Amino acid sequence: MIVEVIEEPVFYDGSQIDPLWAYKRYGVLGDSIIVFRGGMDIAEARMKDSEDVRGKTAITGDDVLHFIIERFDSPGNMFTSYLMQRLFVISAQAVLNMYGIETARSGDDLYVAEEKLTVSIATASITSEKIHLGMNVTTSGTPKNVAITSLTSFGIEPDESLSIGRDVAELFSREILDILKDVVKTRGS
Amino acid sequence: MIVEVIEEPVFYDGSQIDPLWAYKRYGVLGDSIIVFRGGMDIAEARMKDSEDVRGKTAITGDDVLHFIIERFDSPGNMFTSYLMQRLFVISAQAVLNMYGIETARSGDDLYVAEEKLTVSIATASITSEKIHLGMNVTTSGTPKNVAITSLTSFGIEPDESLSIGRDVAELFSREILDILKDVVKTRGS
Amino acid sequence: MIVEVIEEPVFYDGSQIDPLWAYKRYGVLGDSIIVFRGGMDIAEARMKDSEDVRGKTAITGDDVLHFIIERFDSPGNMFTSYLMQRLFVISAQAVLNMYGIETARSGDDLYVAEEKLTVSIATASITSEKIHLGMNVTTSGTPKNVAITSLTSFGIEPDESLSIGRDVAELFSREILDILKDVVKTRGS
Amino acid sequence: MIVEVIEEPVFYDGSQIDPLWAYKRYGVLGDSIIVFRGGMDIAEARMKDSEDVRGKTAITGDDVLHFIIERFDSPGNMFTSYLMQRLFVISAQAVLNMYGIETARSGDDLYVAEEKLTVSIATASITSEKIHLGMNVTTSGTPKNVAITSLTSFGIEPDESLSIGRDVAELFSREILDILKDVVKTRGS
Amino acid sequence: MIVEVIEEPVFYDGSQIDPLWAYKRYGVLGDSIIVFRGGMDIAEARMKDSEDVRGKTAITGDDVLHFIIERFDSPGNMFTSYLMQRLFVISAQAVLNMYGIETARSGDDLYVAEEKLTVSIATASITSEKIHLGMNVTTSGTPKNVAITSLTSFGIEPDESLSIGRDVAELFSREILDILKDVVKTRGS
Amino acid sequence: MIVEVIEEPVFYDGSQIDPLWAYKRYGVLGDSIIVFRGGMDIAEARMKDSEDVRGKTAITGDDVLHFIIERFDSPGNMFTSYLMQRLFVISAQAVLNMYGIETARSGDDLYVAEEKLTVSIATASITSEKIHLGMNVTTSGTPKNVAITSLTSFGIEPDESLSIGRDVAELFSREILDILKDVVKTRGS
Repeated sequence: MIVEVIEEPVFYDGSQIDPLWAYKRYGVLGDSIIVFRGGMDIAEARMKDSEDVRGKTAITGDDVLHFIIERFDSPGNMFTSYLMQRLFVISAQAVLNMYGIETARSGDDLYVAEEKLTVSIATASITSEKIHLGMNVTTSGTPKNVAITSLTSFGIEPDESLSIGRDVAELFSREILDILKDVVKTRGS
Repeated sequence: MIVEVIEEPVFYDGSQIDPLWAYKRYGVLGDSIIVFRGGMDIAEARMKDSEDVRGKTAITGDDVLHFIIERFDSPGNMFTSYLMQRLFVISAQAVLNMYGIETARSGDDLYVAEEKLTVSIATASITSEKIHLGMNVTTSGTPKNVAITSLTSFGIEPDESLSIGRDVAELFSREILDILKDVVKTRGS
Repeated sequence: MIVEVIEEPVFYDGSQIDPLWAYKRYGVLGDSIIVFRGGMDIAEARMKDSEDVRGKTAITGDDVLHFIIERFDSPGNMFTSYLMQRLFVISAQAVLNMYGIETARSGDDLYVAEEKLTVSIATASITSEKIHLGMNVTTSGTPKNVAITSLTSFGIEPDESLSIGRDVAELFSREILDILKDVVKTRGS
Repeated sequence: MIVEVIEEPVFYDGSQIDPLWAYKRYGVLGDSIIVFRGGMDIAEARMKDSEDVRGKTAITGDDVLHFIIERFDSPGNMFTSYLMQRLFVISAQAVLNMYGIETARSGDDLYVAEEKLTVSIATASITSEKIHLGMNVTTSGTPKNVAITSLTSFGIEPDESLSIGRDVAELFSREILDILKDVVKTRGS
Repeated sequence: MIVEVIEEPVFYDGSQIDPLWAYKRYGVLGDSIIVFRGGMDIAEARMKDSEDVRGKTAITGDDVLHFIIERFDSPGNMFTSYLMQRLFVISAQAVLNMYGIETARSGDDLYVAEEKLTVSIATASITSEKIHLGMNVTTSGTPKNVAITSLTSFGIEPDESLSIGRDVAELFSREILDILKDVVKTRGS
Repeated sequence: MIVEVIEEPVFYDGSQIDPLWAYKRYGVLGDSIIVFRGGMDIAEARMKDSEDVRGKTAITGDDVLHFIIERFDSPGNMFTSYLMQRLFVISAQAVLNMYGIETARSGDDLYVAEEKLTVSIATASITSEKIHLGMNVTTSGTPKNVAITSLTSFGIEPDESLSIGRDVAELFSREILDILKDVVKTRGS
């Protein structure tokens, strides 16, 4: 997977989960992980998780580290997309651990001491599977009704966040490559 | 997923990775994880990993804790099967951690201090995806040419291994259920 | 499949055929059959059957017994969806027969003495297969240009219709369960 | 679907369920229903239903009306194959009804007054979906441990059975054509 | 595949690439190639090739020979769609060759002496795969920033273009039939 | 696709069409085209084309240039495999043309003046799609009952054949890469 870290801020409004966004915005061709940082506010019409729509949950933040993963698979498969998402969250957890942040995972969410650090969604279309993970850099602008934490709460400098992002993306990229190598040497039954 | 722990010993010869084994042997209908304990020796003709065939790697052990996972999916998909396998290995790692055994994962293998604790394979057929994971209870009968470790090396009683097995199977079963709940509430794009 | 009978009236405007409607409206997670009763008028933009669009066919009724079936399958398959629809219509036919109403089936339509009793459509998306079947409770508000009949024409009380609906849903649900049991015990070839 | 009625007897040993049998034996290219008559005895190694293997059920008869259905679909899907099978059994039931034989269906079996008239299996491979249905012409040679009935028990002449077979095949063939016409005029969602 | 040549002019605005267009506009049921002639101007919102969107490429022409190919496949597959597109372009090349026009192919484009003769796109949806190929009849109205050529530049009468179109469609239709015949007589492995 | 040209002779007995052969024999991981030269004699049990089995056609030759193409796709698709095969034959035709050999294509066969130059088959399994093309280097050992030609009949030195092979493989490899680039920049519909 191509790993691309975008230095300038990009606001996440939910449209980045659409297929081909990495190509249309950055000319990236093929499976990729785009890492960027910016505010987040997702309009209800763009929410993929109907639980959020039902619960009228706000998904917001002023400074969030974002990951957009796209794997081309035609047609995409929702179960496969969520399996990859769980592995991606586990990669994030492993990297945070190296930076001294011990998290607990519940499904696709990471917590530190019952406080939520991340939001995530996976989806699929006729062309690809896509995953978004957002990790709070600060707690500014996050929803009031949930206990929230952020990277800076653990002594991470905001400017360091993109390099944490790159580490996560590269670890996951190696994981997928490792899986693909297993796939091409295994017999069916 | 149905979790079934088999009390009597079952020898693993590689035929258990065939589709429908859980039904044919135990009458288990549907997605399942069968946990059992027994010796292991896989004939080359049954090896799914062509790397083992190429390398003439022996896959043996006198006392191994086995997991056979089957997910019905017609047709099965090799990439999906390997994604599930990685998540299964991570579930095993989490449970071992609770029992005080700190492991390192490299692809689909678990190690303690560079010594190999597990073997694993994933595969797919027209009817299902299947995964095998074998975890050494003792090192007796394991290949001589690799550094091997086992549960008993860490103070686990051999008789305790099936209950570790049940914990792993149940943790993974909850993980998959959690994913399926996400799948049925997420919009495509 | 989860069978859910909605007591209050729900107007069918064609949006109920969209994926995840059962979850978004009723919190139902997973494969389901939602049974409800209410008026029906489908805007052309929501018609899935392009034959209706071409023919400018009105699909209307003031009192209709509705079934919305959703089977999660990513990606959904149109042929599979229509096979299930035919089986669903046959389940409806079997239940009506128990209530003393002898129908003839032509494709996905049920008739009594050349008068049309039902409308139906099947479709698929990246997340699921969906089926709608509407059965006239009365003929009020139905299109004038076709010979139409309804449950009340055969002595069924309007208030009885939801319980006929439940019977149909439960018969079909058992049929699918029975098929799934066959699937998980059959070898591929 | 091509309907081909074979006049000379063909013994059913289970190999006819393999993909491409209709082409290899009769040169039939494409989706087809082959109708023939002959004895039946299926070796365990060829049984697709693992329930039969588990139960050591004999599947035998001296004079059976056989149907072999093949639908090319690469890869084949087990659930789709079983949906078609149910519709095929329902077609058989409808034709028998025209011949004055009232049957009850339980899953994929037809009964008359608790006596079993048919056996059936569906399966799938990388190339196609296949279905076998066998309908007893006489009860000679059928298993002793189950109550069995046959076409001749209802006044059908053995020589008439192939023409009943043709009627069933043609009814099912029209059903599938009707479904395919719906498929190619329906919008996805 | 059904080949349908439309005598009256049809303007190509990009909506013809949507699934089911052949059925909705002409009542054509099933896999088809629709051949027509008319102007072309594709709104950005309808462009399938994100490269054109990125590059703000105009796709225009006053007199273009169009082909719309639809193959029903649920779900459709993007790779399969592009493989068919390449074969279609090669069919076009072969027919042009018979009319004395020697072209060079680069991907999915045909050129004569570095001048572009065609535009093409392939796509897929949950219901089908679709391909558009447009071949300039004249260069009038084509983009100014690329070297363009057209059928009339090689002595073809504009009125002849639809019959060239029919030849291309029929050649491709025979190619696909030939492939389908191979598919239904080949064993999987 | 990885292109690998094997210098030493390899006898083609039909087992090379099995999935993973390139990995098991040469350690090649991933999509690949293996080019080699050697005798050919395919046992009936290994013939994938049931037409050859039906016709008892011998597929033999003493000196043949072979191509084995594998594309990992789980599950593989027979139609996709044959589309690729046609494109591969067209690549071969283009390269032969550069070497001054004008061929005519009929389906998946290349002819020069009604004499057959090539044999080819495509197939699919749960893990991949595979294609074999054999091009006669000499006519020695080829079947007597068909008019056969070979590369040496057109002044090609036998030793030149592997480099023709490399050219064909590289042209096809670029074609597939070009298609994949289109796939990852095209929107679904």
